[in-house]
Amino acid sequence: MSGTPIILENLIDELSRLPGIGRRSARRIAFHILHKPPDDARALAKALNDFVDNVRFCSICGAISETDPCGICKDNSRQKRMICVVEEISDLLAIEASGSYCGVYHVLGGVLDPLSGIGPDELNLDSLVARVGEGGVEEVILATNPTAEGDTTAMFIARLVARFGVEVTRIARGLPVGGDLEFADKSTLARAIENRVPQK
Amino acid sequence: MSGTPIILENLIDELSRLPGIGRRSARRIAFHILHKPPDDARALAKALNDFVDNVRFCSICGAISETDPCGICKDNSRQKRMICVVEEISDLLAIEASGSYCGVYHVLGGVLDPLSGIGPDELNLDSLVARVGEGGVEEVILATNPTAEGDTTAMFIARLVARFGVEVTRIARGLPVGGDLEFADKSTLARAIENRVPQK
Repeated sequence: MSGTPIILENLIDELSRLPGIGRRSARRIAFHILHKPPDDARALAKALNDFVDNVRFCSICGAISETDPCGICKDNSRQKRMICVVEEISDLLAIEASGSYCGVYHVLGGVLDPLSGIGPDELNLDSLVARVGEGGVEEVILATNPTAEGDTTAMFIARLVARFGVEVTRIARGLPVGGDLEFADKSTLARAIENRVPQK
Repeated sequence: MSGTPIILENLIDELSRLPGIGRRSARRIAFHILHKPPDDARALAKALNDFVDNVRFCSICGAISETDPCGICKDNSRQKRMICVVEEISDLLAIEASGSYCGVYHVLGGVLDPLSGIGPDELNLDSLVARVGEGGVEEVILATNPTAEGDTTAMFIARLVARFGVEVTRIARGLPVGGDLEFADKSTLARAIENRVPQK
């Protein structure tokens, strides 16, 4: 097509590499950019470059940060005696967004999944054991996803840190707040009944 | 949230300004970028900057191009005696992609839409009249969308160029190729019957 400028084709190509964006959406985005002030596109380009140039992984917990250690590990107001173990950084951010946790984190970078070739060595486990072994930790909260892999990984970690005599807890499973009992799946309902707590 | 680095928040903010991308998709894209080589994100940033820095509008037809006149207007193998009038650059690209047209284009930059305050002055019409008036043009093909606004705009242009005595045609309406008669809407079916052509 002599009609499509290379700069437009390039932009569409690059945009369509992003997850959830096909060539049609990419084209739509490109034309949106064309009709907006160029500084909007420049701001996005700068945000992309700033992100990949400056993103670091915290050497303590494995979270992303601009600094090492990360803001949470450096923060003296956070309780260092509680470590919340999550699969991914996005899980950490979700818990932070809930504002319900004042301890520190440990990001595994995945879950045990033998079928996909992910064993203990592929996860950020050695540093977790080292952190717990150093002392000062009283509780390890296992906040992996409530899936088969997440449960397996939680059990694995529980056994791994058992020798340090710390308390090991698992986040609660039950009905989501605002959820509907009628439409809950069987395992969630079973868990909700099994893990019932005294009504206050 | 002390847990979310500003560079990540910025990237999510900028991504979620794009059409069809909410904060959830933006976050997903950001984490995708995090797990890919940084050069992928840099390539996208470069494509964005290259696009807004180098995109030009052709002074003849209004298409986007890296050059002025654009590749199509400069191309001596294209028939200058046919001008295909389209609403948007994306329509031009769609026709180019079909490989079914060897003439030149004229991009209106919209359609007449009095309710949205878009009258003839808001469209790229003066330059179309000037092009046709210069002579050498034998046919004006009206390829605005088959919508109420597109039809109105087509009629308006037909009257506008009538004085030059050029042939004015409208792209055909009918059943889409591969379409199903049973599921076609009434107006499309009516058009398909009205505009029937001899079976070859």
